[in-house]
Amino acid sequence: MNIVLLGSGNVATHLGRALVDAGHRITQVYSPTQAHAMVLADAVNARAIDDLAVVEPNADVYVIAVKDDAIAQVAAQLPPSSNGIVVHTAGSVAMEVFAGHAERYGVVYPVQTFSKAKAVDFSAVPVAVEASDPATYTALARLGESLSTRVFPCDSGQRLSLHVAAVFACNFANHLYAIGAGILREHGLDFGLIRPLILETAEKVMMHEPEDVQTGPAVRNDIGTMQRHLALLDGQPDLAELYRKLSERIGRQSALKT
Amino acid sequence: MNIVLLGSGNVATHLGRALVDAGHRITQVYSPTQAHAMVLADAVNARAIDDLAVVEPNADVYVIAVKDDAIAQVAAQLPPSSNGIVVHTAGSVAMEVFAGHAERYGVVYPVQTFSKAKAVDFSAVPVAVEASDPATYTALARLGESLSTRVFPCDSGQRLSLHVAAVFACNFANHLYAIGAGILREHGLDFGLIRPLILETAEKVMMHEPEDVQTGPAVRNDIGTMQRHLALLDGQPDLAELYRKLSERIGRQSALKT
Repeated sequence: MNIVLLGSGNVATHLGRALVDAGHRITQVYSPTQAHAMVLADAVNARAIDDLAVVEPNADVYVIAVKDDAIAQVAAQLPPSSNGIVVHTAGSVAMEVFAGHAERYGVVYPVQTFSKAKAVDFSAVPVAVEASDPATYTALARLGESLSTRVFPCDSGQRLSLHVAAVFACNFANHLYAIGAGILREHGLDFGLIRPLILETAEKVMMHEPEDVQTGPAVRNDIGTMQRHLALLDGQPDLAELYRKLSERIGRQSALKT
Repeated sequence: MNIVLLGSGNVATHLGRALVDAGHRITQVYSPTQAHAMVLADAVNARAIDDLAVVEPNADVYVIAVKDDAIAQVAAQLPPSSNGIVVHTAGSVAMEVFAGHAERYGVVYPVQTFSKAKAVDFSAVPVAVEASDPATYTALARLGESLSTRVFPCDSGQRLSLHVAAVFACNFANHLYAIGAGILREHGLDFGLIRPLILETAEKVMMHEPEDVQTGPAVRNDIGTMQRHLALLDGQPDLAELYRKLSERIGRQSALKT
């Protein structure tokens, strides 16, 4: 497929590379900042543009991978003569953002976290697809299947819930790692000491449900240990409150199970 | 070394197996429930006992791997004629719990999460060691080094902070996975959809500091997305509050960095 890629951030970069690796041709990379467009365009052998007025009208697919709040605005400026499918890649933006801006449209949402710092094996990434009509769904599913073995249909409501679940299990989990790192730093200890624990915790839920492998003082209702932990957090009321809330939730969940 | 293992839970089980694999001899496994003692005793080729009065006095080390609040009580009932080193394996119990109960004592704290469901490679587990005196430290460090390549000295205060950090980064992270699983379940989606994301998030901090690889709407200050997420959580004020608090913390941390 001939693809125009609109965006130059983490999702655009990882997706662009994966599309080229899958044999698609990226003709243009758009960013309002020409230098950003050029970095990605070079990597995917495309032309860099910083003006939506020069987007070519003959692409098969226009992939909009920009900040959520900018999607509608980019879509509104695409060439009106085009018959290409307009898609975005966002978890939390309803497909109907495109209604009135394109004939054929949809969403291709890769359920993964992308950082410039780390390559990702796209073939294992679940890809949620939604489309304006069955023929467009077929085309987008085929595009998704050229990248990943795990393409599935997902409407806008489900996709939003998927994104919220991902924020808890990924973005917020990373913040808990950062809290751990901060506590260790305060006590002269290295974050590396809990790295094996972090990896083990994630690996454990690859085969199990998280509720079934919960460990720690809260699930044991080990009040003495929790009190000692809260004493350590005494000068940090914000962290102490978070500790209490999460422990209470774990305790309630554990009580429901037994 | 000849070792008496007091306890039959997850830590006792994983540690017991690792000790045997490292060539130590476990002579007795104690649990107040004889059936529990027998399961582990069989696995490590030891004698099961359910009465502290029959603990043998000639072991080199007595490893107390029981609930934190029961450690002192078990220590108080060990044979008074013994010269063996008495250790516990807990993150949050000060070494001085043994003062008055033994001549030589210490702590061997493996910084890892153990579940019956999953084997753990002990050689990569950081092991925090503390001891009543230098000679005992040397003996316990040697014991630790027979299990792991990552033995380090750690006093009771540091160990407590390490345990609190581990609770945030591991126990609480697992609870966030459970929250994600619950949200997906409510919307007819499978937890498997976010498994690659969970693993990627953990793998990313194996090489990076968590603060440097934070992703998601909060770090981008993407208010529109956060509002859509909060709308989805509308019927669950507890989760909405957690979402808000964690997003605020990520936003503050991000603002401090820039």
